Amino acid sequence: MARAVVVFSGGLDSTTALYKAIADGYEAHAVSFDYGQKHRKELEQAAKIARGLGVDHRVVDITAITGLISNSALTSDKEVPEGHYAADNMKATVVPNRNMIMASIAIGYAVNVDAKAVYLGVHGGDHFIYPDCRPEFVRLLVSIALVANEGFIDPGFEIITPFLNSSKADIVREGAALGAPLELTWSCYKGGARHCGRCGTCVERKEAFLLAGLADPTSYEA
Amino acid sequence: MARAVVVFSGGLDSTTALYKAIADGYEAHAVSFDYGQKHRKELEQAAKIARGLGVDHRVVDITAITGLISNSALTSDKEVPEGHYAADNMKATVVPNRNMIMASIAIGYAVNVDAKAVYLGVHGGDHFIYPDCRPEFVRLLVSIALVANEGFIDPGFEIITPFLNSSKADIVREGAALGAPLELTWSCYKGGARHCGRCGTCVERKEAFLLAGLADPTSYEA
Repeated sequence: MARAVVVFSGGLDSTTALYKAIADGYEAHAVSFDYGQKHRKELEQAAKIARGLGVDHRVVDITAITGLISNSALTSDKEVPEGHYAADNMKATVVPNRNMIMASIAIGYAVNVDAKAVYLGVHGGDHFIYPDCRPEFVRLLVSIALVANEGFIDPGFEIITPFLNSSKADIVREGAALGAPLELTWSCYKGGARHCGRCGTCVERKEAFLLAGLADPTSYEA
Repeated sequence: MARAVVVFSGGLDSTTALYKAIADGYEAHAVSFDYGQKHRKELEQAAKIARGLGVDHRVVDITAITGLISNSALTSDKEVPEGHYAADNMKATVVPNRNMIMASIAIGYAVNVDAKAVYLGVHGGDHFIYPDCRPEFVRLLVSIALVANEGFIDPGFEIITPFLNSSKADIVREGAALGAPLELTWSCYKGGARHCGRCGTCVERKEAFLLAGLADPTSYEA
């Protein structure tokens, strides 16, 4: 069975990506990153979801990187902004080069376990705010992975982004269709024990269930 | 004064790159990586060299990554091979995707401190063994850095690799000309208190001083 590494935060997108990798016939190796995010709850939820699936799951501690790239509201004392995701103030949640760092590690892992692919749950709705979720980034990522690991990586290695042009609502629909436990996924950036219901990711999460026409299983504070 | 981040291992190449960045007029921010390498001595030497220069120096602990990409002789129980660098057995020293991982973090750091460039000490002699030291890798790296951080990175951001087509002997010559303390640099992969004189990097180091026509200040075991 061919292997795939799945970058897996425990959120809606990457949980659905993990279920998709398995549905696509891969032996999935899930990898989560502890980068000092306030919303560490996502790591616990990721562990629960991986256990439920019985897949190999690693949490990689990259908190030391935080000291270097600590401008983001996700990893510093700054307030996580509230309101809609598309708004300009959500730029405060950008962690410089985060996806490239995580993808680089996932690619190294893939080379090490001889995986044929890395799955990333980036999606259409991310493009506006996060440049490292855009199609051009993904295209360059597979090119650089092949070049940087020539002779060590499978020549057919792929970066698979099943939701690159999907909306969050599409992902919720697909996750539900694949039987993913969406009630276990975590979105909130605020770091509380329940979803706050007010930060950008919570607003986006609510909207996604609404647009998908599915009951939202999330317990929100507001 | 424009800033530059220098990926700085404490070896001949990156020490000369650090001196070059300063000579090029940058305020240098040196960054070293603790990736669980046996030859941790290089980190001590890096700290000494940075202190001598009075430049900002960070050591980033990415040892957690080792568990994921632990096939290399540099980070596992495997023996570090002896003999000439170009030999096939030196492939055992490849840490999957190491340069991409380190470069990604350096790029995130550069975005955070608003640096205009990242210096990498990769050189011509590395190309044969390490795919992530080749010109094509460097070209893709600057492209992906610009795409992944659009709106946050200086549009003129560069990956500067002054030795991309230089030999190790050229670097030794340049380092000496720039006044770099080559006697403080560390090359040996074996992890001892002195340079072993037998592993690939030691053989290469000896040869570089010889070809550069400079007295080798290194104390070798053999």
